[in-house]
Amino acid sequence: MEEKLELMIEDARDKNERALAKLISHVEDRKTGWKDIMKSIYAKTGQTCVIGVTGSPGAGKSSLVGEFAKKLANLGYSIGIIAVDPSSPFSGGAVLGDRIRMRDISTYQNIFIRSMATRGMLGGLCQAARDVVRIMDFAGRDIVIIETVGVGQDEIEVVSAADYVVLVTYPGGGDSVQAIKAGVMEIADLFVVNKCDRDGADVIVSEISAMLDLSGDAGSETPQVIRTSALTKEGIDNLVDILSDFMNRKKKCPHLQMECVRQEVISIVEKEMASLIQERIAGNGNMEKELKLILSGKSDPYSAAEKLMNRFTVTKNLERSTGRRL
Amino acid sequence: MEEKLELMIEDARDKNERALAKLISHVEDRKTGWKDIMKSIYAKTGQTCVIGVTGSPGAGKSSLVGEFAKKLANLGYSIGIIAVDPSSPFSGGAVLGDRIRMRDISTYQNIFIRSMATRGMLGGLCQAARDVVRIMDFAGRDIVIIETVGVGQDEIEVVSAADYVVLVTYPGGGDSVQAIKAGVMEIADLFVVNKCDRDGADVIVSEISAMLDLSGDAGSETPQVIRTSALTKEGIDNLVDILSDFMNRKKKCPHLQMECVRQEVISIVEKEMASLIQERIAGNGNMEKELKLILSGKSDPYSAAEKLMNRFTVTKNLERSTGRRL
Repeated sequence: MEEKLELMIEDARDKNERALAKLISHVEDRKTGWKDIMKSIYAKTGQTCVIGVTGSPGAGKSSLVGEFAKKLANLGYSIGIIAVDPSSPFSGGAVLGDRIRMRDISTYQNIFIRSMATRGMLGGLCQAARDVVRIMDFAGRDIVIIETVGVGQDEIEVVSAADYVVLVTYPGGGDSVQAIKAGVMEIADLFVVNKCDRDGADVIVSEISAMLDLSGDAGSETPQVIRTSALTKEGIDNLVDILSDFMNRKKKCPHLQMECVRQEVISIVEKEMASLIQERIAGNGNMEKELKLILSGKSDPYSAAEKLMNRFTVTKNLERSTGRRL
Repeated sequence: MEEKLELMIEDARDKNERALAKLISHVEDRKTGWKDIMKSIYAKTGQTCVIGVTGSPGAGKSSLVGEFAKKLANLGYSIGIIAVDPSSPFSGGAVLGDRIRMRDISTYQNIFIRSMATRGMLGGLCQAARDVVRIMDFAGRDIVIIETVGVGQDEIEVVSAADYVVLVTYPGGGDSVQAIKAGVMEIADLFVVNKCDRDGADVIVSEISAMLDLSGDAGSETPQVIRTSALTKEGIDNLVDILSDFMNRKKKCPHLQMECVRQEVISIVEKEMASLIQERIAGNGNMEKELKLILSGKSDPYSAAEKLMNRFTVTKNLERSTGRRL
């Protein structure tokens, strides 16, 4: 590995935030040596606790994250925030008031904020988030908070990989409960009814509780439903207590479980294969020939894909004939 | 192709809705012969007009789609609806009132409704939606409406492949405008402020108009912003007029453009490769060996993926030594 990268890694471990930011960018952009970085830090990770915060846009997730991150920072925890939510002020979709609130939190010494684009991520959103969590973990962050919108498949996958999942909803005309049914209900460890200073908060709390009673398994613990308001600060202390309690109970998080590792290896292979496809299948004359056949009505995308695929699968037959495993 | 499948295809073309539903399931579940089905219908497609409807959960997309679909059906159009939105009553996330409304629309002879899961789609959401559109197209649907939530990356890709994109928002405490900034603003052809019987509709209309004025290119047409209410029926006729007008102006939709076809071929190849990876890389003893090395701290996911990948890339060197293209 280049000396420059080795220095960057060392500085990041020594709590240099600039180095940490550069390290993340290097890996995110898949610059030369990114894989060496990940390989060399891997053994020194697995200590952080990952909290996923999700909910529909407008639920006030960012303000809430800001509030409890500050309190956790005051308790002595070192915190990393990853904002995947495109409507989050942390990740850029901010109006003026949001930006002021954001400046407030980003001056905290123990809080490091990183936003992440959801479109066109090199290597896929899920793997990208996993990489950033790992780098923050290596850089000594006790807690990594991932904020995401609980609707898209990718976003749900990201948040469900967290150790603890907080689902944020709010009183918004009775549609909120409908909104949270979108596949995230099952993965939540805690339900937060935010903006509880508004009318209708009690209704939402009882609707969610009723839903949980109906769907709960006999064996498993029913998730709590709590009320918060980033405006009046109601319930924030309670939320912080619940999160601290979780972290105390769960000293070491199960990042190293077999199934997680398997999924990660497969996901890395898949992404590398995608580049290979671009290079070997999509990026040559055969592709153009096939496309012309389709446009002239002599072929179709399914047949074309099949023909292009044969360039890979033919190796199987060759294995047989040569008796050598490729 | 099996005779059973051939019959199914014929029946679907003859407007048999049961056959159409079976055909879609066959392709969606990737049952034997699915690719033959798609190959054989491909040349007979490209006639339908695809309308994408998106917006956050709770914006009332489904009721709105129901209203304008009925009107379009009454004008003589044959309509297919694909519900990708997990909170849509069409796709299952319905409360009682929604289900009653849905029964109302599904009895229309000219309206065929199909819901689509967003998680674990075989072949990916985007390709799956493309396949279903194509089958509906083949079965003579003049218009295919895709309803999706405008937040996740997959969902945005699905809707941005439509010929005409309708973005639905509603007066909901001032958060709606923040919500629509999530990457969908740019792809919308029409902005609909739904539930305009509520307070605050005018504010949203002017906020969106202001945003469009700011972001508009000098050359391109600024999208319209209209008000609707599925409750009072205000604006529904206007919406139907705009959609009919679009369909008249655009007789043939550009399904067969080079770039679209290229993307589709690549996407099919990628999905097939993913299966191949499962079969040749993930599903054998090498994988387990690598996982054990990782868990014992002797390796990491990045190195393991690299080793497993070599089974594919080694073919490149073999090509060189044999002088034969694989």
